[in-house]
Amino acid sequence: MNTIGKILTLTTFGESHGPAMGGILDGMPAGVAIDLDVLQRFVDRRRTGQTVGSSKRDEQDRVEVLSGIWQGKTLGTPIGFIVRNTDARSNDYNEIANCYRPNHADYTWQMKYGVRDPRGGGRASARETVARVVAGGIAIQALNRLGITIKAGIVQVGPCPDEAAMEQTILEAASAGDTLGGIVGCTIKGVPAGLGEPLFGKLHAQLAAAMMSIPSVHGFEYGDGFDMSVKRGSEVMDKFMKREDGTIGTVTNHSGGIQGGISNGEDITMRIAFKPVPTLMREMPAIDSDGNPVTLQPRGRHDACVLSRALPIVESMAALVILDNYLIKKTNVL
Amino acid sequence: MNTIGKILTLTTFGESHGPAMGGILDGMPAGVAIDLDVLQRFVDRRRTGQTVGSSKRDEQDRVEVLSGIWQGKTLGTPIGFIVRNTDARSNDYNEIANCYRPNHADYTWQMKYGVRDPRGGGRASARETVARVVAGGIAIQALNRLGITIKAGIVQVGPCPDEAAMEQTILEAASAGDTLGGIVGCTIKGVPAGLGEPLFGKLHAQLAAAMMSIPSVHGFEYGDGFDMSVKRGSEVMDKFMKREDGTIGTVTNHSGGIQGGISNGEDITMRIAFKPVPTLMREMPAIDSDGNPVTLQPRGRHDACVLSRALPIVESMAALVILDNYLIKKTNVL
Amino acid sequence: MNTIGKILTLTTFGESHGPAMGGILDGMPAGVAIDLDVLQRFVDRRRTGQTVGSSKRDEQDRVEVLSGIWQGKTLGTPIGFIVRNTDARSNDYNEIANCYRPNHADYTWQMKYGVRDPRGGGRASARETVARVVAGGIAIQALNRLGITIKAGIVQVGPCPDEAAMEQTILEAASAGDTLGGIVGCTIKGVPAGLGEPLFGKLHAQLAAAMMSIPSVHGFEYGDGFDMSVKRGSEVMDKFMKREDGTIGTVTNHSGGIQGGISNGEDITMRIAFKPVPTLMREMPAIDSDGNPVTLQPRGRHDACVLSRALPIVESMAALVILDNYLIKKTNVL
Amino acid sequence: MNTIGKILTLTTFGESHGPAMGGILDGMPAGVAIDLDVLQRFVDRRRTGQTVGSSKRDEQDRVEVLSGIWQGKTLGTPIGFIVRNTDARSNDYNEIANCYRPNHADYTWQMKYGVRDPRGGGRASARETVARVVAGGIAIQALNRLGITIKAGIVQVGPCPDEAAMEQTILEAASAGDTLGGIVGCTIKGVPAGLGEPLFGKLHAQLAAAMMSIPSVHGFEYGDGFDMSVKRGSEVMDKFMKREDGTIGTVTNHSGGIQGGISNGEDITMRIAFKPVPTLMREMPAIDSDGNPVTLQPRGRHDACVLSRALPIVESMAALVILDNYLIKKTNVL
Repeated sequence: MNTIGKILTLTTFGESHGPAMGGILDGMPAGVAIDLDVLQRFVDRRRTGQTVGSSKRDEQDRVEVLSGIWQGKTLGTPIGFIVRNTDARSNDYNEIANCYRPNHADYTWQMKYGVRDPRGGGRASARETVARVVAGGIAIQALNRLGITIKAGIVQVGPCPDEAAMEQTILEAASAGDTLGGIVGCTIKGVPAGLGEPLFGKLHAQLAAAMMSIPSVHGFEYGDGFDMSVKRGSEVMDKFMKREDGTIGTVTNHSGGIQGGISNGEDITMRIAFKPVPTLMREMPAIDSDGNPVTLQPRGRHDACVLSRALPIVESMAALVILDNYLIKKTNVL
Repeated sequence: MNTIGKILTLTTFGESHGPAMGGILDGMPAGVAIDLDVLQRFVDRRRTGQTVGSSKRDEQDRVEVLSGIWQGKTLGTPIGFIVRNTDARSNDYNEIANCYRPNHADYTWQMKYGVRDPRGGGRASARETVARVVAGGIAIQALNRLGITIKAGIVQVGPCPDEAAMEQTILEAASAGDTLGGIVGCTIKGVPAGLGEPLFGKLHAQLAAAMMSIPSVHGFEYGDGFDMSVKRGSEVMDKFMKREDGTIGTVTNHSGGIQGGISNGEDITMRIAFKPVPTLMREMPAIDSDGNPVTLQPRGRHDACVLSRALPIVESMAALVILDNYLIKKTNVL
Repeated sequence: MNTIGKILTLTTFGESHGPAMGGILDGMPAGVAIDLDVLQRFVDRRRTGQTVGSSKRDEQDRVEVLSGIWQGKTLGTPIGFIVRNTDARSNDYNEIANCYRPNHADYTWQMKYGVRDPRGGGRASARETVARVVAGGIAIQALNRLGITIKAGIVQVGPCPDEAAMEQTILEAASAGDTLGGIVGCTIKGVPAGLGEPLFGKLHAQLAAAMMSIPSVHGFEYGDGFDMSVKRGSEVMDKFMKREDGTIGTVTNHSGGIQGGISNGEDITMRIAFKPVPTLMREMPAIDSDGNPVTLQPRGRHDACVLSRALPIVESMAALVILDNYLIKKTNVL
Repeated sequence: MNTIGKILTLTTFGESHGPAMGGILDGMPAGVAIDLDVLQRFVDRRRTGQTVGSSKRDEQDRVEVLSGIWQGKTLGTPIGFIVRNTDARSNDYNEIANCYRPNHADYTWQMKYGVRDPRGGGRASARETVARVVAGGIAIQALNRLGITIKAGIVQVGPCPDEAAMEQTILEAASAGDTLGGIVGCTIKGVPAGLGEPLFGKLHAQLAAAMMSIPSVHGFEYGDGFDMSVKRGSEVMDKFMKREDGTIGTVTNHSGGIQGGISNGEDITMRIAFKPVPTLMREMPAIDSDGNPVTLQPRGRHDACVLSRALPIVESMAALVILDNYLIKKTNVL
């Protein structure tokens, strides 16, 4: 339930206001050099307070690796790690313990488990993604040694695709107590041809599941995506060509680096749609567990736009999927 | 690799021109009445030759259930089934055994396995979806008894959203030897609140993976999807209300029936983007395994547009995901 | 539930008196030559009527491979197969539809599913093992190419370890309408060092689960097994030595080729205890579903001792485990 | 690889001399009261220094639960926990960093991963079992609420079945610098009929795998086990009877509470054979990585007999299996 992957698996735990978040990255190959300083800096990219419109909760997000890495190298054993929660202000949430906020997971969580930790959203908080970034940061270091790189970027903040105006767009929404979503793009370079499972485990299906599992994501497309569906077959045909080094490539890349669920050696491209942050910094109409309307005052510390913080999360999820499939590929021959 | 699901699992097999396609649906609860005639009719919806622009390959797609259903009811044991391939014309494919067609899986498959069955695309053929529809048809009968219904429909054929003009749009593309994709919508009604796993197994993440695993799918969104990313938080807020029967619902449904990865009792809505069929009925520029250009003449029997045939496939994948999560939900309490 | 393995997985289906038994072997590496005649002969070793005391049910057990093998080689795709049931005499079982036989699965199956197919024991019949042998026979051919061989033999029939007297021992029990169990030994040669997962997936834990999943098995040990528990540490120490070829081996093999759950390159040895066949060929005291005593007359066709038929089953389960771990081992390095 | 279970899963991490051992218990139902003091006392049963012949390493084994339990109840979320390693003396192991001890995992681990943490045996140390006991202790509390109890006991220490003489037997072996194994019995009471999966996941197959995954275990049997294989079918027949409360039971229990892989409501009984501790407290003949003989002096702190410490481990593994199957059983009906 809280695990992703087949050979390389990540299992995570942690509630937003509990003692710590953490996880176990299992199946990492042995003997891979991991630089923990580089890892910490990667995790820091996800921290709050670094960009306009991000939450004021100030977590240091200090990564403690508890196993699996010794003398700078992976042992092949599970990598256990924790990140302490230090700046939780649980009193901010007393008010909502017995009510359901719109577009949050309060109600559905209650329906599923019959109980929930309301402090900071409990496990439904995006704080859980810190564990993904720790694991993803490790996977990225392994992929880099294979010549594979992953880069996510903001395509659009709300309706604004103009990079120079994004900050202003967020400030305007925030000043109105409102929030924004947007679109993140991600490109993976250097993936060898032949990765992915052709049926249910198509590489793009795995990527879709990984990206859709990030809080607030409402849409996923790869290659030309939804645009591809309005074109004719002849318009999106990626003709093959022989590259100078004798290998086979394609002239265009409408297919986004994946054919039939398997990588073809071209750049893997995808776009991920995030809904606006659900917690507004103004009065919110909620409902209590008896069905009575409740008006919530703005409390807690929240992001007005999560996109900049989402970039390392997107890269992490991509890395976990690609490295897992890289390992699975090894089993395709005797 | 060829399995989907956790408690309710479907594993499939079969090459397009091999003796048969088939699968095993495991984890079906015991004692569920299954009408095999209803099942056959559901599978028939996916057959060729029923709509404009579909392939001329005439498979009867007769479902043979080999186990797991006895005296009209499920036994709780795995349901094994096969569908014979009877109208394969493998000679149509001699030409492509040693070359790679654009936007097909020929090249990637070769890179992954070092060998492939070129006849009809082998296992990369959309013919594999017949096994999904058999399993999905069984799951749908179980869901219906729970009051859950699933309905897919064509939203758009290529750029054409006008239902009355779709047939004409396909004929025009087909007459030019070209092909079309489009967008399929799917709505699931009657899902109780509380289904889905809040982390990596978010209900929409599972649905995304299931839909993206259908051949030709390039994009997935649920609720307002990509449109949601251009709105402000206040614009897409699904306010709660108390329904007449005392239960809690939402006034709007931008969220598509899922909050925090868990169903909230509203209709689950999603849209799936299909790329145009890659096999054109005109000359196609391919490449041989040495990297030399090859021009392929139109051969084989192919669809100009697969959307109408895709509808039962989409419904089937949705059914497998929902029923699986319905069963998992039972384990959330002692 | 009906699946075993991680990378190489076998999923099976089939009731004893249904149309067919079958399965899907997924994850087989591509390009492995499989001789279907050799496979059929391997499966034939499990057939009835070949040895003293075996059932008179005469199934031809003709293997139909439906996918995954083409032109004599594996494709890397799932290998679907069926074996038709042809000699079922379901009327023999009318009597027991509503009663529970001692030491059978009638009662427990009913408690679990609330429904069961009583004909021939349904899926609880040892007939399900035919699917294991098909899959195992394929795995064995792959292992043989790697220099790995598997050989099971009868250690003891009931209390009789004397090979020359085994047949007579069985005949005596059978003539009294009684049945026998016994012990099967199995040795796997040529396994390279380094296979197995050190924690929950210890190689011997996987072998134990695989063997204990064979109908009638009540005990498992590897190496010196239970005898090891009565010795001192100094008595069972397998000293290392340098072999002539420079590799490292052990002088003795009390450990049965596995240390810490991982193969060490020595022969893997194990012993498997089978209980006597539960169906006697004399009156049996049963109970009906209301708890009333019932006396059953001997009916159906049953084995007096299954050990000779069990040998290919044991070899098959061993092969599936070893090949799976051989493939997993490939993922331990980048 | 480091995970066990299907719905209720335990994933563990930790090297003997790393900062901490730990794990994630996922799939625990929500709303179950867990007493952390009771849990700590259960974990304490596994600690060293409490019985004759146990290691002098003095770990406090203080359990830190980091998530999943709030206000004394489970949340349905993953339960993350750690146990710090505090009394590691890694210098004791400098000598063996480059050599392989007999009957240890040094050599096989090196063959598998190409690297290992030699300090205290790294992850191959039985210290990893502390994580199993934390998780098992939680599962036991849940089972107790269902009326299910688990009790392990020492059947035999080495060749000594006389409880009064066991301590003396261990002291004699220890004084000779030698070690002992033995046999542990375990009985599970109160398991309802209908638990277990009839094919590969037979309840006893799962129990066998769980027990065989405990360090040093070399054999497993349930019910009459190996003894059953020397009897005739008529001798081990567990006749059914109607109990006073109208339910169905068996007069005898040769079958150990499981028929056809599914519990029948009787006590589940099993026996587990442990090999003697491999580390002797006298000179040991080892080999270095070049194949040269090495004589190791006794160092480190080790048990002469682990059986008393093994009891909570056996109970924990049994609890994890039973609770997992209890949850799976819920999915057998719609």
